[in-house]
Amino acid sequence: MKQVKIGVIGFGTVGTGAISILLNQKELVKKRTGIELILKKVADKDLERPRQISLPRELLTADAWEIIKDPEIDIVVELIGGIHPAKEFIIEALRNGKHVVTANKALLAEEGNDIFKEAKERGLQVGFEASVAGGIPIIKVMREALVANRMLAIYGIINGTTNFILTKMTNEGIDFPEALREAQELGYAEADPTLDIEGIDSAHKLTILASLAYGIPLSFKSVYCEGITKIASQDIEFAKEFGYKIKLLAITKLLDSEIELRVHPTMVPEDYLISKVDGVFNAIYVEGDSVGATLYYGRGAGSMPTGSAVVADIVDIAKGVKTLSFDFSEKYTIKPIEEIESMYYFRFMALDRPGVLSKISGVFGEHNISIASVIQKGRSKAGAVPLVILTHKAKEKDVLQAVQKIDQLPVVAAKSVFIRVEGQEE
Amino acid sequence: MKQVKIGVIGFGTVGTGAISILLNQKELVKKRTGIELILKKVADKDLERPRQISLPRELLTADAWEIIKDPEIDIVVELIGGIHPAKEFIIEALRNGKHVVTANKALLAEEGNDIFKEAKERGLQVGFEASVAGGIPIIKVMREALVANRMLAIYGIINGTTNFILTKMTNEGIDFPEALREAQELGYAEADPTLDIEGIDSAHKLTILASLAYGIPLSFKSVYCEGITKIASQDIEFAKEFGYKIKLLAITKLLDSEIELRVHPTMVPEDYLISKVDGVFNAIYVEGDSVGATLYYGRGAGSMPTGSAVVADIVDIAKGVKTLSFDFSEKYTIKPIEEIESMYYFRFMALDRPGVLSKISGVFGEHNISIASVIQKGRSKAGAVPLVILTHKAKEKDVLQAVQKIDQLPVVAAKSVFIRVEGQEE
Repeated sequence: MKQVKIGVIGFGTVGTGAISILLNQKELVKKRTGIELILKKVADKDLERPRQISLPRELLTADAWEIIKDPEIDIVVELIGGIHPAKEFIIEALRNGKHVVTANKALLAEEGNDIFKEAKERGLQVGFEASVAGGIPIIKVMREALVANRMLAIYGIINGTTNFILTKMTNEGIDFPEALREAQELGYAEADPTLDIEGIDSAHKLTILASLAYGIPLSFKSVYCEGITKIASQDIEFAKEFGYKIKLLAITKLLDSEIELRVHPTMVPEDYLISKVDGVFNAIYVEGDSVGATLYYGRGAGSMPTGSAVVADIVDIAKGVKTLSFDFSEKYTIKPIEEIESMYYFRFMALDRPGVLSKISGVFGEHNISIASVIQKGRSKAGAVPLVILTHKAKEKDVLQAVQKIDQLPVVAAKSVFIRVEGQEE
Repeated sequence: MKQVKIGVIGFGTVGTGAISILLNQKELVKKRTGIELILKKVADKDLERPRQISLPRELLTADAWEIIKDPEIDIVVELIGGIHPAKEFIIEALRNGKHVVTANKALLAEEGNDIFKEAKERGLQVGFEASVAGGIPIIKVMREALVANRMLAIYGIINGTTNFILTKMTNEGIDFPEALREAQELGYAEADPTLDIEGIDSAHKLTILASLAYGIPLSFKSVYCEGITKIASQDIEFAKEFGYKIKLLAITKLLDSEIELRVHPTMVPEDYLISKVDGVFNAIYVEGDSVGATLYYGRGAGSMPTGSAVVADIVDIAKGVKTLSFDFSEKYTIKPIEEIESMYYFRFMALDRPGVLSKISGVFGEHNISIASVIQKGRSKAGAVPLVILTHKAKEKDVLQAVQKIDQLPVVAAKSVFIRVEGQEE
């Protein structure tokens, strides 16, 4: 029976999940694969904190280097998160001839090129299934199951916190701050929620997905990133009237040999499957040229789902599966956001006077933006009423210029809001 | 550069897809995997029929044995379907030391134990991703991504024909025969649609999924199988009133160390993601003990999606991935359908007389069936009106006995209909 020895650095939420699966499913994995997974050591700075599982004292160490330097350990699992010292741990583990499994999306998105280079030179594997969408095996799907597909487009709900907040806002008509507070109370959002609500976490994950999809270097800095903090409950209401839901989507597509890489709130037709993905769940829609439309759904975070992905990576590496098949050396231009085309939703807060619609649509006309539908609702005592417009496909560049002009019109009472719209053009 | 030589037996719909992907994505696959896939020979009884792609004459043969006996060929791809001679081809290919890839669910479900035994003894791989749910990589997901999970339940829409028919019936209010005719006109249903509409195709695929999930031998004969031919449009309407959709589900779950294996029309809460899977699309919901709820969606059939799965298997085998990790030797009792528990929907055609409900609910009471909701609608000129009842969880055995008694009541005008209901009990 083949034995594989594992050291885990980081005994937090994901570490606890991975470790408990390693221990509890040991026999199951042995039966299924003929491989015995042996947990040799677990490192964490804090060994006293109470945890869901208790380990024998001799398995524990406060010193990660004990694992990295242990000549018996075959696979080092990095689950501490953050860039430093996670990067140093991983690079040094690779230099010591160990395969690595990590759930660290920030590290991979921002510094992954160095890590994969190091691994490739040494013929070692880096498993990172757990870094994107928790228990959903999207990395395996893209690298292995869809190996014979050119990826045409990927649309992902890959941040559970923001999806929970948007779902709350949609179902209960509450505003962003209240929904965020609830997410924090339930432990779905952190005390400092910036990484999630500003879309940065989604952008990290999108960076990884795009590199797999197109074979390009990890390009986090090229991702356009816009969070959900400016979404108002009235925008969600108007979206509903038009038959859409608002989701924070991570999007990458290949158009005319250029790649789009963007994270932003998006209006999605409510009958699309991805619109039905609610709460903390994640889903990734992948369109391949052979396979067509596919979608993968599950829990994008949490101790056990993410632990399940970590252990699947460990098993693959133990079986000798060569996971590092992409070499991230393809060259594509990444389109700046100004160059994209999209349909758009606009909400203008306009004074309730005659001629407002004609003024705004005049500016649209000057910038080649063609209107698809309009909602203008009753009178307001305060003077400003929402004027909502859906457009046909337009250039982002034109949209930005038009909005700037419209915001200067005397009849416009507040900064205008726009949201990109996906779906078939009518 | 590693080269792998492939022979394809069967140049039909799936063969055409697989071959065109092998040829068109050759460079892509080479770049991604470092492996050159070489199509050495294609066998089909009919070489004259016009096809989407034309191959050089020297690649073609009418004699499958030419491929099976060719010492240069590493992987034999069987895409002719049916039990014989597909089984003989595969067994002989294995005996000649070749790995096998097949899309043949009927063969695997009914005779797969022999094939896997032969492969195991020889240390060869049998890839069968394309046998279940076309382009959805459900086999890989279950064997590899969820390797550290005990499977708690699987619910699949794994037959596109019946899902297309049920979707048509639901959206257009038409009856089964008309929807079937449309499916046939569009090429989604065969001239003899029995395998699809009676649920047999779903049962074949469920057999394969259950063997992977629980490590049991392929047990097609133990699958309870009920098709969609008796679903009336009024049942779909009533389901809607209760907030359900009717889907043909393939279900397997592990309960009290016993396995359920069943295919039947099922009422599913309309807000469940799987309820939104419409038309010819497939989806499989898999619940693992670590990963929780996951769902995989895509095209379950068609030349290119299925071809995509075939080529993914070829690549895995070429890379040396050991796919045959389950040994199908676990022993579980498979529960006979009479032993299951479920919620139920009943439609009784009752004479419009006082006391009918009390008579029927009396029989229910005698058999420990507890009523959750009732719909009894207006008067009928014909005398018989539908009485529709949803129950709490009940034993199938009790349900069968109760229905038999109720059908003998003088106030009941026609054979009663019942449909199993999934979802949370209220």
